[in-house]
Amino acid sequence: MKKANDQEWIRKKKAHRAYLSNEHLFAGIQARDTSMLSAAITLVESQNPEHRTQSDELLKACLPLSGNSVRIGITGVPGVGKSTFIEAFGKLLIEEGKRIAVLAIDPSSAVSGGSILGDKTRMQELSVMKNVFIRPSPAGTTLGGVARRTRETIILCEAAGFDYILVETVGVGQSETVVKSMVDFFLLLMLSGAGDELQGIKKGIMEMADAVVITKADGDNEKRALRAAAEYKNALHLFPPPDNGWIPQVFTCSATENKNIDKVFVLIDSFCNQQKINANFENNRHHQDQIWLKESLKELILQEYFSNQKYAGQLKIMEERVLKGEITSFQAADELMKMYRDEK
Amino acid sequence: MKKANDQEWIRKKKAHRAYLSNEHLFAGIQARDTSMLSAAITLVESQNPEHRTQSDELLKACLPLSGNSVRIGITGVPGVGKSTFIEAFGKLLIEEGKRIAVLAIDPSSAVSGGSILGDKTRMQELSVMKNVFIRPSPAGTTLGGVARRTRETIILCEAAGFDYILVETVGVGQSETVVKSMVDFFLLLMLSGAGDELQGIKKGIMEMADAVVITKADGDNEKRALRAAAEYKNALHLFPPPDNGWIPQVFTCSATENKNIDKVFVLIDSFCNQQKINANFENNRHHQDQIWLKESLKELILQEYFSNQKYAGQLKIMEERVLKGEITSFQAADELMKMYRDEK
Repeated sequence: MKKANDQEWIRKKKAHRAYLSNEHLFAGIQARDTSMLSAAITLVESQNPEHRTQSDELLKACLPLSGNSVRIGITGVPGVGKSTFIEAFGKLLIEEGKRIAVLAIDPSSAVSGGSILGDKTRMQELSVMKNVFIRPSPAGTTLGGVARRTRETIILCEAAGFDYILVETVGVGQSETVVKSMVDFFLLLMLSGAGDELQGIKKGIMEMADAVVITKADGDNEKRALRAAAEYKNALHLFPPPDNGWIPQVFTCSATENKNIDKVFVLIDSFCNQQKINANFENNRHHQDQIWLKESLKELILQEYFSNQKYAGQLKIMEERVLKGEITSFQAADELMKMYRDEK
Repeated sequence: MKKANDQEWIRKKKAHRAYLSNEHLFAGIQARDTSMLSAAITLVESQNPEHRTQSDELLKACLPLSGNSVRIGITGVPGVGKSTFIEAFGKLLIEEGKRIAVLAIDPSSAVSGGSILGDKTRMQELSVMKNVFIRPSPAGTTLGGVARRTRETIILCEAAGFDYILVETVGVGQSETVVKSMVDFFLLLMLSGAGDELQGIKKGIMEMADAVVITKADGDNEKRALRAAAEYKNALHLFPPPDNGWIPQVFTCSATENKNIDKVFVLIDSFCNQQKINANFENNRHHQDQIWLKESLKELILQEYFSNQKYAGQLKIMEERVLKGEITSFQAADELMKMYRDEK
């Protein structure tokens, strides 16, 4: 069944990629057609430089329709129960009449070639619901590339009328900073582990969290979870208070027993209200936009170079010389830069 | 005591940064003076564009002296015992008469501002030994930047006559790919965890490993470690054999009981011999060089733009407009690119 679905998806993807115009895609997005939204995301994710012009135009068309969702980053180490949490939280949002999109940032999937996040098979109940859109992590060779495409996907999803965008990521490494720079609310899921409660999670990630939720607080584990919550509360006190005036919250939840999942919803709601009153909500987004301006610009500058056939030819010759061990990469890069400068 | 050392280090660092010429640094590196090596690395790590010209020249001078070490990547999740392993392994290398440098790639340190890898306080015995050089992860905002500086640090360390360069990284996320692209041998440390043995570690990271070593195989844990080793061996069989003809090895070790640490040394030695006979050792380095050519080139191209005062001024104006919410980052990036193209 899964395999058949995959093949169907690949077939559809290829078909869309080949035939759909921006008018088609934009009309489909406005009509909240998720298969059209999928095709649009596939276009945005495409590594083919020829698709870039088309996707840039599509994004420009969608921009005025975007910005109206609540963007939530969700992170935690493998095994913390991210998908179980998202399944429970997502179902609650659906009950509240919201439309939700689940995206994933998983740079390591670029290596293994397969995404382990945002996988539909992991959120079985949620994935078949109406008003739910789940998209696995895009393939890509760099975190920057994956991040840009996720950010653009957010715009497409917002244009398609989704109210909540959940951006999921693994809780160790650098991808959290990237997710933080594209969401309104950053939620850190934690386990009440045996041993040192703070081990394995970086201070920097704790500092970014607007809320810390201890998962799997059920059965024998409940007491331990409550104790962990108390410890994290103390730990958070050691950090300087965030600039936006929000005090990060810590509590326990159980996705399987559906305990405190509603608390997360209420919390995020009150966060948004508070931040909108003091204009921090918009300011934060503008500030994020400023970060992304530099990232977009970098990508455009590099694109300008690498899509130029003349430069590509020069690079290829140098690469071959490096492969033969005739020159070092440093020397080759220097030579190429000299040629680039002389052009101008 | 530690604090006093830190202050001394900062003082020295600042002094070196301000006053040392490339002749001084290069002479110091050739004389195997580690405080000069430190100063040179600080120069290479500097984010100040003015230091870039100097560090490029220094690297060029060091390049002919580099390439003679064995570069070993060591990775594993937090808690696997990386520093305990490196301490035991490092001591063995010292006994064998080798000079060793321990470097770290920890992109998340950019967020928290403090490095948790390559920390001297974690390798107390090793850090005070002669012929040992330990350098924490450089601060930096991007994985690419941290990676480039680590690669350049390898060159400096090799020029200073170190025989073994250990590059340490956290075993979840993308930094492993980066480390793999700069080392000869990639060692994955694993815990014999409760539950699913393969959980939490990505297939892609397993695939990159030249050896998997199960740590903490001592006391009650030994049987479990042996069982885990057997499971990993089976798992590795499922991967296609690597191109270089090397069959990845799996075994257990105990750093505290000093068990099988010598096996790692012998294994890496036989790896190097085998790979040198069939020329894969050099070919792999050339191939890595090819990857780094593109990375270096990208950095040079971006440097060319961002160090240009005119462009910096244009960017600043656009950033302010984005911050005020007057235009989106996409529009601003487009405008800046138009101006850039018109210049040329």
